[in-house]
Amino acid sequence: MNPTADIAHLDRLLAGMPPVAALGLRVQSLDDAALKLTAPLALNLNDKGCAFGGSLASLLTLAAWGALETTLRRAGIDADVYVADSRIVYAAPLYADLSAEAALPGAQALAALRSKLDSRGRGGIELRAQARCPEGRVVATLEGRYAAVLRR
Amino acid sequence: MNPTADIAHLDRLLAGMPPVAALGLRVQSLDDAALKLTAPLALNLNDKGCAFGGSLASLLTLAAWGALETTLRRAGIDADVYVADSRIVYAAPLYADLSAEAALPGAQALAALRSKLDSRGRGGIELRAQARCPEGRVVATLEGRYAAVLRR
Repeated sequence: MNPTADIAHLDRLLAGMPPVAALGLRVQSLDDAALKLTAPLALNLNDKGCAFGGSLASLLTLAAWGALETTLRRAGIDADVYVADSRIVYAAPLYADLSAEAALPGAQALAALRSKLDSRGRGGIELRAQARCPEGRVVATLEGRYAAVLRR
Repeated sequence: MNPTADIAHLDRLLAGMPPVAALGLRVQSLDDAALKLTAPLALNLNDKGCAFGGSLASLLTLAAWGALETTLRRAGIDADVYVADSRIVYAAPLYADLSAEAALPGAQALAALRSKLDSRGRGGIELRAQARCPEGRVVATLEGRYAAVLRR
């Protein structure tokens, strides 16, 4: 594992998606345990002067997506990752830069997913992500199901 | 009701949000029954060459938001509208321009919301939105709870 290379790879993927680049979204940190993404408030304002819900949804969706993408790549698994469904709760308005964190899937979840990929070429996994304000309070949470599909 | 003025008002609100303007999102149609939003695929591509899930989430979230915003304004109710929570299902990848539709709340739902606003200054309402491909198949659906808060 090379965290600097992992971050550069993810940042390249993110910057390559026009709607993501437009949010100014980038990797804040990435280690063995979690991926954190950030985006400036100025690029993500709604009509009420706080963070746009759709931007928080994108940040949360991509934090969990990136956590799985990174985990699969580190495991040498060449797969596309799609979000299949998500439940998002917006707990409070956010008047600061956006930040969202997702835990990387653990060894057990990865083994279960790998077994599905081995047998069917695709598999699903449940992931979570949280957005917090600078004071540490949760402002939005995502629970979602993601699908990994082996590249041909 | 003046549809042209309603559309101009919504388009102004949407264009005023930087992350929404970046998606090229605008009103496709608005009448007594429904609001339809659209955005070009080129501005909303993911790493796999189809529509980014976060962009679909934004489109769906804003279709339902705009449907309520328009209904309240037509009813002479001066309120901010927030998304409180949402469940999104992504049914299929989309390789075309994005389009999402939400029904305007009916008279009964509006009356229930108005009663909450009258007594507490705020109230919640359940809304739905659907995104379809040009052939008419549903590619993503949103069910969400929205909060309206009277402006002081």
